[in-house]
Amino acid sequence: MIIKTLKQKHLLFLKGYPKKDIELILDTAFKFLEVLDRPIKKVPSLKGVTIVNLFFENSTRTRISFELAQKRLSADTVNFSASSSSLKKGESFKDTVQNIMSMKIMMRCMRTPHLISKALTEFIDAVVVNAGDGAHEHPTQAILDMMSLKEKFGYLRGLKIGIVGDILHSRVARSNIYGLLNMGAEVKVCGPPNLIPINIKDLGVDVTFDLDELIEWADALNILRIQKERMGQPLIPSTREYRLSFGITFERLKNHKKEIIIMHPGPMNRGVEIDSKVADSDQAIILDQVLNGVASRMSILYCLCGGYSDEME
Amino acid sequence: MIIKTLKQKHLLFLKGYPKKDIELILDTAFKFLEVLDRPIKKVPSLKGVTIVNLFFENSTRTRISFELAQKRLSADTVNFSASSSSLKKGESFKDTVQNIMSMKIMMRCMRTPHLISKALTEFIDAVVVNAGDGAHEHPTQAILDMMSLKEKFGYLRGLKIGIVGDILHSRVARSNIYGLLNMGAEVKVCGPPNLIPINIKDLGVDVTFDLDELIEWADALNILRIQKERMGQPLIPSTREYRLSFGITFERLKNHKKEIIIMHPGPMNRGVEIDSKVADSDQAIILDQVLNGVASRMSILYCLCGGYSDEME
Amino acid sequence: MIIKTLKQKHLLFLKGYPKKDIELILDTAFKFLEVLDRPIKKVPSLKGVTIVNLFFENSTRTRISFELAQKRLSADTVNFSASSSSLKKGESFKDTVQNIMSMKIMMRCMRTPHLISKALTEFIDAVVVNAGDGAHEHPTQAILDMMSLKEKFGYLRGLKIGIVGDILHSRVARSNIYGLLNMGAEVKVCGPPNLIPINIKDLGVDVTFDLDELIEWADALNILRIQKERMGQPLIPSTREYRLSFGITFERLKNHKKEIIIMHPGPMNRGVEIDSKVADSDQAIILDQVLNGVASRMSILYCLCGGYSDEME
Repeated sequence: MIIKTLKQKHLLFLKGYPKKDIELILDTAFKFLEVLDRPIKKVPSLKGVTIVNLFFENSTRTRISFELAQKRLSADTVNFSASSSSLKKGESFKDTVQNIMSMKIMMRCMRTPHLISKALTEFIDAVVVNAGDGAHEHPTQAILDMMSLKEKFGYLRGLKIGIVGDILHSRVARSNIYGLLNMGAEVKVCGPPNLIPINIKDLGVDVTFDLDELIEWADALNILRIQKERMGQPLIPSTREYRLSFGITFERLKNHKKEIIIMHPGPMNRGVEIDSKVADSDQAIILDQVLNGVASRMSILYCLCGGYSDEME
Repeated sequence: MIIKTLKQKHLLFLKGYPKKDIELILDTAFKFLEVLDRPIKKVPSLKGVTIVNLFFENSTRTRISFELAQKRLSADTVNFSASSSSLKKGESFKDTVQNIMSMKIMMRCMRTPHLISKALTEFIDAVVVNAGDGAHEHPTQAILDMMSLKEKFGYLRGLKIGIVGDILHSRVARSNIYGLLNMGAEVKVCGPPNLIPINIKDLGVDVTFDLDELIEWADALNILRIQKERMGQPLIPSTREYRLSFGITFERLKNHKKEIIIMHPGPMNRGVEIDSKVADSDQAIILDQVLNGVASRMSILYCLCGGYSDEME
Repeated sequence: MIIKTLKQKHLLFLKGYPKKDIELILDTAFKFLEVLDRPIKKVPSLKGVTIVNLFFENSTRTRISFELAQKRLSADTVNFSASSSSLKKGESFKDTVQNIMSMKIMMRCMRTPHLISKALTEFIDAVVVNAGDGAHEHPTQAILDMMSLKEKFGYLRGLKIGIVGDILHSRVARSNIYGLLNMGAEVKVCGPPNLIPINIKDLGVDVTFDLDELIEWADALNILRIQKERMGQPLIPSTREYRLSFGITFERLKNHKKEIIIMHPGPMNRGVEIDSKVADSDQAIILDQVLNGVASRMSILYCLCGGYSDEME
């Protein structure tokens, strides 16, 4: 049996992440997906490993997905949730992280409103998994998105993926772009002009402001959640205008002959960026993404803890 | 050995719940009560089973009781607490539930401020336990109440149970009525006229507005917590008036020769619906109810997961 | 093999706590520190034991330290966090505690804003560990502080420990004083005159208002967190004044030839009671204290559950 291990110690960003590591994580994720179909969905892989979930930003769904993944690997989990505002009061973010690190934890899953700096991870022992940092990256979401595409199509190389919405502020978009391009897929983004980064083409993606053109081109669309707080601000369309131009409605999809796959990282604003008739249709693989999220995170935690062995077969 | 299993997949409501299922749950609960008397209060019954506690309403006591029951059955637990107001912001209640269900969880214990619709449970795999839904039902509370009565009297058939307080808004009252009548007990309710449902007699219970009459009649009283927010509103008595008419005081009980059993689902408003001298007396089995709550919930989770086996003997 | 057990059932206060018990806890803590250096940091010592963490006061760091200790001993943990204000609303503190106790929990770690009364512990079965009660005591913090001193110096007897800050309101100071004096160390306190208890000398400690005198005398300083809310109130110095008189700055320490050890229970107000240049220097053992906190709490929980056996060797 060949033990394969990741080249990277942490999973911080998909920018520059080795293709071989993504491949190993995806392959292992499909093995864990089989585990999730068994009556007993638990493997002893991470018995004795303590994982701290450091969530400095509210996120019940991602936290539950991580926690389920950890428990199904038999790891021990400790949750730490703090609003970043409460951190400002007394103790600095760095002191809190450093403190918790001192407790000799094997692994840390972090969600923060700021960039997770590499410096933070270099002087510590624990393996760090980025569970979403500010408007920067969300690598585990991109891995579950790639897994869901691979499950649906069988391959990633050459796939045409459209990402729709507020690309500028989206960590999901950024991580998807890095990951998908690395795996040989093509990516085109679409959204209001002022919510598209100016130098986005430098990343190797194409831009369109015409959603119908994107639908005609794409094999699958990843629909970003639109943050209603931003709507109606200067230069940003109202909710109604947004829906008209960039909302994925059943009527719009019907106008195109081909049937494309619809993804959404959730939570959805039904009736804004996506209509219920689309979200609940067979075209949508949104709930598969949720299950694949658990399998992907099991794979990530498992691979970062030491590689592939035959105990789960 | 005969494996007995429940007829119902979920425990949603005691209305229409099979008597045989209640009997099996009660019998098993007494076995778990013995487990709780051992030095090691843990059995491996639900090893490998993941249970998500979805609490959309604040309830530390009920949540802890469920969580203890789960841990003592060796299940893995994931807690999800969300105020229903935060759900309104972004994601719909249904989307959240559907999402968490997609993660292939075996069992879900839910507390919600709304009715748990059967529709919600029909298209999913996970077993659902209602941990209190709005002003509708609270079946696990009624089962622990029945267990406590059976522990005290040895039987339920023919027992005379009085329920005192705000019957109209009480899920505890409703589930107790359905369960107790099904098990052959008699039920009489007592409270301010406008807090008694108009058609209550259709359920098969009697009504009185005279607490002394109820005490004279009953073998046991279940005292409901009075919500102070409602006091003093039009047609509703003030706290002082309520105590005078419907408060269980030591003096009032002393006036009756027979000694009746006093129950309360907690948390108590001492000095309002019940006096400390009563709550802390030997007549009260309020703390027994708390322990029986853990045993009942162990039994419910265990029975819903597949029936009775001899591993716990 | 000789089984050694504690004389005390609970760990409530270090005032009057037997010296032999402290010694056994410290010796065992060093054994658990070795466990924390292994790849698998988990021992089966408390398998099947349920511990409830009752935190009536916000404290993520202490809670995580306790929870990690519990999980590494293989105990099952249930967390209960309630702000004391929410307790005031409905249910009394005593009712909540009594309720949770009724669930036959083996051990309870409590943090409360009020004094934990001995009365509360006498009528119940569960072992109680005080995780900090109001301005009264914080015995587990003092034990980890003593462990850190013993780790650094090899002994406690004859050590000279200075405690700097708001001695009047500090449970850390109080527990350190009781513990250290009992173990044969000398203690001198230093802070603004109105933040030093008038009868402090009755406890057997010395007082100085001159920080430089303290530094000249001490082998180690324990720097208390200053609560900014108190600053600038009548008779209390402003933050700037406080730093000038009682802040541990690099410049001040440099003026003394000897190098003393710097401790802080955290969270630190960098730039107020301690400067970053000191906190991050080799003189400071602040992060060692954090790790020793987990080992100390493992030891405390373990020793209270039945004494020393050879299973962890």
